[in-house]
Amino acid sequence: MTNTLTFRLATKEDLFDIVQMLSDDTLGVLRESHEATLSDNYLKAFERIAADPNQELTVAELNGEIVATFQLSFIQYLTYQGGSRAQIEAVRTKSTYRGQGIGTNVFEYAINRAKEKGCHLLQLTTDKRRRDALRFYESLGFVATHEGMKRNLD
Amino acid sequence: MTNTLTFRLATKEDLFDIVQMLSDDTLGVLRESHEATLSDNYLKAFERIAADPNQELTVAELNGEIVATFQLSFIQYLTYQGGSRAQIEAVRTKSTYRGQGIGTNVFEYAINRAKEKGCHLLQLTTDKRRRDALRFYESLGFVATHEGMKRNLD
Repeated sequence: MTNTLTFRLATKEDLFDIVQMLSDDTLGVLRESHEATLSDNYLKAFERIAADPNQELTVAELNGEIVATFQLSFIQYLTYQGGSRAQIEAVRTKSTYRGQGIGTNVFEYAINRAKEKGCHLLQLTTDKRRRDALRFYESLGFVATHEGMKRNLD
Repeated sequence: MTNTLTFRLATKEDLFDIVQMLSDDTLGVLRESHEATLSDNYLKAFERIAADPNQELTVAELNGEIVATFQLSFIQYLTYQGGSRAQIEAVRTKSTYRGQGIGTNVFEYAINRAKEKGCHLLQLTTDKRRRDALRFYESLGFVATHEGMKRNLD
């Protein structure tokens, strides 16, 4: 990449851009609401995330334009002798900026941020249908040692 | 089970019992420190968990004896239209009480607790070497749709 990304915590004003990125995706389009005005649920969710010091909803900017987003969660456990972990979810690069190494930069940032916060591990789960994502994460040193299991509660 | 389990948040006084359960396990024994006195790291970790309203380190008691432990985390996301999820980790039943349905009761509790907190999903990751655990989670309605990927930061 010729230009450097800048990373910062998301603000309320970024919400529309973020939700657009979340829905502009083969799986995301099925589950997000992307009308011209955002559902109030997104705003309430944003406020809960922003109020929690262990959650960092982050955006990456390139020349002032938001080109990627992700959420980092820092979770304290007793396991591993009281170790804490970072978890990364909802990682998206704007569709017009894919294939330019932005994802790699996002993970460089996330790894450094997790280390800064004293985490011994960065973890994620990825849908098994996302074959390219799996290969990408493997190239970054992630190992698929675990099954990621979900149970709907509806 | 003839007797009913009672569930409550863990206190500092339960820490020794909990760490014993975490280390009394084929994988856990490799990574926990289980000396007669607990390392201060466990106490510090406990205090951070207890101070966080989105973390519930829980114990299950049978006739006043701690027989199981787990940690529930409630994580707010923007995805799924601002949905929040529960995540369960560090689930252990005391070795002398295994095979008596305690795990099933633990998950009944966890599912209800996650619903009470308004979560649409309960998620976990399980080490692929734990074949029995995988079958157990599947019997409870969990589906292994995701790869659980980890990257050490040391």
